Amino acid sequence: MFAADEGRGCNSVQLRRYNERLLLQTLRRAGEASKAELARKTKLTGTAIGGIIGGLEACELIEVGGRRSEGRGQPATLLRLNPKGAFGLGVRLDRDSIETALVDFGGEMLGRRVHDRILPSPDEALALVRQDIDSLLDILSPAERQRLAGVGVAQPFNLGAWLSQIVISTPAFRDWDEIDFGFELGQLTGLPVFCENDGNAAAIAELFYGRGREFDDFIYLFLGPVIGCGIALDGDCLRGVSGNAGDIAVMPVPPSRLASAPNNGGKWELLLSRASLNALTRHLRHAGESVNTHGDLSRFIKSHHPAVEEWVEDCIDALVPALLSASCMLDAPLAVIDADVDDGLIDLLMQRLARALEAAAPEAHTAPGLVRGSFGSDAGALGAASLPMFFSFSPRTDILHNGTK
Amino acid sequence: MFAADEGRGCNSVQLRRYNERLLLQTLRRAGEASKAELARKTKLTGTAIGGIIGGLEACELIEVGGRRSEGRGQPATLLRLNPKGAFGLGVRLDRDSIETALVDFGGEMLGRRVHDRILPSPDEALALVRQDIDSLLDILSPAERQRLAGVGVAQPFNLGAWLSQIVISTPAFRDWDEIDFGFELGQLTGLPVFCENDGNAAAIAELFYGRGREFDDFIYLFLGPVIGCGIALDGDCLRGVSGNAGDIAVMPVPPSRLASAPNNGGKWELLLSRASLNALTRHLRHAGESVNTHGDLSRFIKSHHPAVEEWVEDCIDALVPALLSASCMLDAPLAVIDADVDDGLIDLLMQRLARALEAAAPEAHTAPGLVRGSFGSDAGALGAASLPMFFSFSPRTDILHNGTK
Repeated sequence: MFAADEGRGCNSVQLRRYNERLLLQTLRRAGEASKAELARKTKLTGTAIGGIIGGLEACELIEVGGRRSEGRGQPATLLRLNPKGAFGLGVRLDRDSIETALVDFGGEMLGRRVHDRILPSPDEALALVRQDIDSLLDILSPAERQRLAGVGVAQPFNLGAWLSQIVISTPAFRDWDEIDFGFELGQLTGLPVFCENDGNAAAIAELFYGRGREFDDFIYLFLGPVIGCGIALDGDCLRGVSGNAGDIAVMPVPPSRLASAPNNGGKWELLLSRASLNALTRHLRHAGESVNTHGDLSRFIKSHHPAVEEWVEDCIDALVPALLSASCMLDAPLAVIDADVDDGLIDLLMQRLARALEAAAPEAHTAPGLVRGSFGSDAGALGAASLPMFFSFSPRTDILHNGTK
Repeated sequence: MFAADEGRGCNSVQLRRYNERLLLQTLRRAGEASKAELARKTKLTGTAIGGIIGGLEACELIEVGGRRSEGRGQPATLLRLNPKGAFGLGVRLDRDSIETALVDFGGEMLGRRVHDRILPSPDEALALVRQDIDSLLDILSPAERQRLAGVGVAQPFNLGAWLSQIVISTPAFRDWDEIDFGFELGQLTGLPVFCENDGNAAAIAELFYGRGREFDDFIYLFLGPVIGCGIALDGDCLRGVSGNAGDIAVMPVPPSRLASAPNNGGKWELLLSRASLNALTRHLRHAGESVNTHGDLSRFIKSHHPAVEEWVEDCIDALVPALLSASCMLDAPLAVIDADVDDGLIDLLMQRLARALEAAAPEAHTAPGLVRGSFGSDAGALGAASLPMFFSFSPRTDILHNGTK
């Protein structure tokens, strides 16, 4: 918040690191490229590119792919990322589940451990996660384990808040607001830990492995138990002063008109109380249905249950002002929409939202375009595991200032 | 919007430029500092600092101030900005005025030309502005004229839109949507031109000369005929994909309950139709008062006219969800509030807004703090004139990528 007393000069080590990452990003987007193409795309000199390529090959982050004829002379050697050049672990904590996943540099999820249960105490969770990490690391060879970039931890901004809106029973999550889980996990495992809220983490997976290969600027929305959001600006993730930018879940919207909605009596409700799978579950239960798992939700979605239709309408009604507000503040022309369940829900939401946004966009403004997210119910785990990848290998301008992340 | 095909590598020339600007920023914030202090604050080596200082002294951007004893040995020489080291011109175009101003590196406004009139045709405006620029440049000596950083142009994002909401008669501003005034002005004057919408420009004045000396992150709100907004993040101005981030004026809010408000019959209105001096003017007129100038507004504000009180209530009622929405998306802990008229209005708005935000802030979130802007009715002209200063002398990370602005 306060202007940093300490300035942050930039030196040539940071510059080299930035340019390395820029080259990795260029390859991630292009798939394969020759040295000449890389020089042209990064606007770096051939000499600089040569030095960087040598370094990246030495640490096995890139490898030689095929060859391609580029006009006269010898065909050019093509470079590409080595999918086994780096690995990332991710832990996603939510109020009702713990997931741990291992991904490689190419974005393949090599393993995953899931516990669908109300979040236990932090100590118990740490022990569980440590076990899962150990068993996932068994998948890697000793040499590959040397190339582990770290472990990402993704969790809701504030596990202890809004319990009344989002779960039926009210477990003792307050402990979770007191503990720095990432720090403890780092102590326990000796691995570098990268923490983000779950919305940012899923947006970072989309940036690093998904839509970020095409788009630099978007608002990422993920409909889970709560609604998550993250903001991609200029190819980076907007973090905000406390790491909680893109917190669309708490954006004020008018109260729901569904009979199932809790009436707080106020003029405003939080978006999460309308646009979330919890709200859908609540509405289905209000209609007399039994809903306990994502499988139940899928079944009602597939069968076009009238309560699903009613909730979709109410959800869109809440999303329109929220997304228009976000879009006019950020001047981002695109929203990426994803959800924890599908079976037609994502397409339905996108169609309705597109139509409603179009109708509501202010004069001289275009409603944000909508594209589908890449990872569906994998977004949470992949988001967490993307964090060490993103912070270690993405050309974020932050590294030019302070050389930390 | 699309991920740039062209990467943007960073070279040592850009790095040097960035570090120069970082040093200038450090001096702008500190007032005076010794070489040792500058090295400590910028985290640059003494050698690097020495080289940069030499260069900045040679082009007269900094000068030797006093001396201060720093422990043992000779008192240290203190450096400071040379207020006459650079100059900036600014042109602020609005629907009912044209202002041109000249400022120096220290932020003093050396001269200003104002035409309070409905904006004429672009050609006529260009001729007027050129005359004003010529007469303002007469204030400078020939040597000082060599240190002109350029001319800033600030205008509403879309001069031709929302005319029905904001002016009584509807002049032919559509011409203005067709012309690139900045480009034309550059052709005519041969000066480098920097264009921003008026909200961003005023926020940049606040960043460069005002609250930005204390704060790196804030949402800047300016209550003029329309409401303007700009976003400071990490000491830079968030521009967005089309240069129009922070467009809070078009954020959807519920319709006004004032009898004077035009009823569009919809569920949502634009914030600008409630939180703006135009809305206040409309409400006073509805109450039978004659309002033609800012002086008239001031008079009714000072005399606590009941219509002013009614409008304030309605304005705050609209600002609360808008500012909470902006604040949860951006995770900026502070809003800077300024306005084109004062006479107690700014304090009144800040008090009411602070109370209302506090009451409405969601669980586990703190309402953004409020501080007063620095420049009041000067913000527009100073904002425009700050643009060449900011883009030429502020350590924006953009210069590390592309070396342009």
